[in-house]
Amino acid sequence: MKSVQSISRVLIVGGTHGNELIGVYLIQKLERHPQSIQRSSFETMTLWANPQAFAANCRYVDLDLNRCFRRSDLQNLSRLGYEDLRAREIDRRFGLGGETPVDVIVDLHSTTANMGLTIITDEHPFNLRLAAYINLMQPSVRIYVSTLPQSERSSLRSICALGCTIEVGPVAQGTLQADLFQKTEGLIQVILDYLELYNCQTVPGFEEPLTVYQHIDTIDYPRGDRNNLQAMIHPQLQFRDYEPLQPGELMFLTFEGEAIAYEGPSTVYPVFINEAAYYEKGIAFAITARHQVNILG
Amino acid sequence: MKSVQSISRVLIVGGTHGNELIGVYLIQKLERHPQSIQRSSFETMTLWANPQAFAANCRYVDLDLNRCFRRSDLQNLSRLGYEDLRAREIDRRFGLGGETPVDVIVDLHSTTANMGLTIITDEHPFNLRLAAYINLMQPSVRIYVSTLPQSERSSLRSICALGCTIEVGPVAQGTLQADLFQKTEGLIQVILDYLELYNCQTVPGFEEPLTVYQHIDTIDYPRGDRNNLQAMIHPQLQFRDYEPLQPGELMFLTFEGEAIAYEGPSTVYPVFINEAAYYEKGIAFAITARHQVNILG
Repeated sequence: MKSVQSISRVLIVGGTHGNELIGVYLIQKLERHPQSIQRSSFETMTLWANPQAFAANCRYVDLDLNRCFRRSDLQNLSRLGYEDLRAREIDRRFGLGGETPVDVIVDLHSTTANMGLTIITDEHPFNLRLAAYINLMQPSVRIYVSTLPQSERSSLRSICALGCTIEVGPVAQGTLQADLFQKTEGLIQVILDYLELYNCQTVPGFEEPLTVYQHIDTIDYPRGDRNNLQAMIHPQLQFRDYEPLQPGELMFLTFEGEAIAYEGPSTVYPVFINEAAYYEKGIAFAITARHQVNILG
Repeated sequence: MKSVQSISRVLIVGGTHGNELIGVYLIQKLERHPQSIQRSSFETMTLWANPQAFAANCRYVDLDLNRCFRRSDLQNLSRLGYEDLRAREIDRRFGLGGETPVDVIVDLHSTTANMGLTIITDEHPFNLRLAAYINLMQPSVRIYVSTLPQSERSSLRSICALGCTIEVGPVAQGTLQADLFQKTEGLIQVILDYLELYNCQTVPGFEEPLTVYQHIDTIDYPRGDRNNLQAMIHPQLQFRDYEPLQPGELMFLTFEGEAIAYEGPSTVYPVFINEAAYYEKGIAFAITARHQVNILG
């Protein structure tokens, strides 16, 4: 992992999923007020990633754009879904070796899960320092860390090494929520401020360890024939993202009323509980481990 | 309005909207346990209204099935959308003069608005008595009354004079929520119990007046060129369904941060605040008047 020199170009992305309206309308607002995202030491660009999915009021037209950026898929010209084409175009414009390659990507998302304000990133030291700064400025923000091998990275954000996803919720697909709109807007400013401090070599030291939620695995709903759901998130787990789930605590309730307990070996911290878009992906929630990490200044 | 004799056949409908999952999975459960909805004095049938929309994980395939039952539309054979065909089939099976005409319809819905447990019905004296009984058994249930002229009635429920819609929320489209699933199930039992009491002529008297929320009108978001949204529900209004909105109180917040107040002539009680499916219908919320009505036994 080479060390980061300075940041020249930043891309803020919204509407990667067409029915996550906060990102769609926020990108449009930033495009009306470009001065609000400019800083003296780098250029900030914006991208409305999937306008056709927004027009259809769906997450995607053919397939999830945020799973289309695996390097082997981008190189596979036989992939011809709308989002495949869109992913290649985005990579050609903003990816490494593209027309205007970017150093940092911030991708705006929302979730039906009660994840509050979450920063999703990986263990790149630059990204952890960025997360630590955000957490310092806004202590309620949670840091969710998921580091995949390069060959499995398929998100839009993965076309460059640096940056993060902002995930806010709970908000229903196809709706706006003013408080989360404004909080997302505030987080963008914090991130841009950090990048400016970074370029000016005036990043503050981080004395306190950072609490991160490290991705472990995902858990699917109980399913029957033809993949049919057999249970729902248990009321005792619903909306309890980032709270400890102990072995023996309840996680599902079957339609017939039977409770199903979590039987893993240790306490975990669930996230993305009851995310609408994950029913089809075989994910009822993701489980994380809570860690303290020391951030080197 | 002729007086109602006795109830012979009741239809419980779920999944009229494909992404309102509580109704979809509840209908499937009732079909696995048909004895749970049988009563001695009438027959109960079930209908999964729009399976293709569920398969597509959308509200509808071609158009909103719950707006396809206007009598003139049912008779217009040039209407050939999937939901047009489905509406005609449902009317042919369960409507007046159909194969197995039903006396009462209960249609199961959910909403992204914070409407708790709501019964939507009209001013037919039978329906108001049904609503009063539900409210007596479960005082937290709100009664939303909307009476349209016959020619404008387009909901599935409108193919017979008696019955109601159960509307529960907030729940995101495309998700289940166990507590609301179970509460919907409980309301179905209360309704069936009432119909049994009705047939046995043992309905209790209603001594207290019933609080109803009477539909007045709908209010759209501020929009600009090409119908683009210019504002969101104001945080002070979000999730405040059934709470009074006074003239001068805030209802919208523009993306640029300007608050817009309600300027109607009198206090109203908003419902369906920020319902996802209503963005495209030009409805930010509906306004109601709160009334007390005396229910004759």
